[in-house]
Amino acid sequence: MTATIPETHRDLLERPIVAHLGTVRESGHVHVNPMWYVYDGEKIRFTHTTGRKKFQNLQHDPAMTLEILDPENTGRYLELRGRLESIEKDEGAEFYKSLQRRYGVQYEIPDADERIVLTMVVEQVAKQ
Amino acid sequence: MTATIPETHRDLLERPIVAHLGTVRESGHVHVNPMWYVYDGEKIRFTHTTGRKKFQNLQHDPAMTLEILDPENTGRYLELRGRLESIEKDEGAEFYKSLQRRYGVQYEIPDADERIVLTMVVEQVAKQ
Repeated sequence: MTATIPETHRDLLERPIVAHLGTVRESGHVHVNPMWYVYDGEKIRFTHTTGRKKFQNLQHDPAMTLEILDPENTGRYLELRGRLESIEKDEGAEFYKSLQRRYGVQYEIPDADERIVLTMVVEQVAKQ
Repeated sequence: MTATIPETHRDLLERPIVAHLGTVRESGHVHVNPMWYVYDGEKIRFTHTTGRKKFQNLQHDPAMTLEILDPENTGRYLELRGRLESIEKDEGAEFYKSLQRRYGVQYEIPDADERIVLTMVVEQVAKQ
């Protein structure tokens, strides 16, 4: 079941904010990292590489939670809890490039061959 | 064993930044929330209340991870993984008031009677 994003906080998903993704390690430790994201009105997508720790965490446990804090009002945030739905190859790093455009940066992508797209399904929403 | 904070990123612990605390729910879902914090050179402390979800999560699983992103350079952050060491009553909400001063805000504290201090021990450090 996909959760509905409340209209009052939808802007946080639409604006290019650096968000915070929580995953669980095999050791039981929690991992929290800054992440770029994009929302298509239903699911959330992230860029990643096959070699990194978060990818290994998610293979072990697909639970993921994204917290997006309003940089202009730190009393306001959205917390999206869900799970990893799919991992796809990012052919030609095209998805990564679209995120670079969204976040207004541009640089070489040395690991273009290893780039993947993580798709998250949102199951629960909390907000403040 | 307490981990050492690298000098290059120590400012992130000293500045009054709103950080992101990750905990694990009994259901297996990850919880990520904005949090105030203070660092005494060894441990990290948070203000909380006995009634809230994060408190229940931590009773179940003491693993906690704090991510602090530099608001002036989103490519720079500190990730501190560790565990809850202690929970103490915040007498007179004095600790909460000290955090209000640190973060430059002041308002009434309606739940002063339920206020607690969470102390975190840092076991692993990651940075970028």
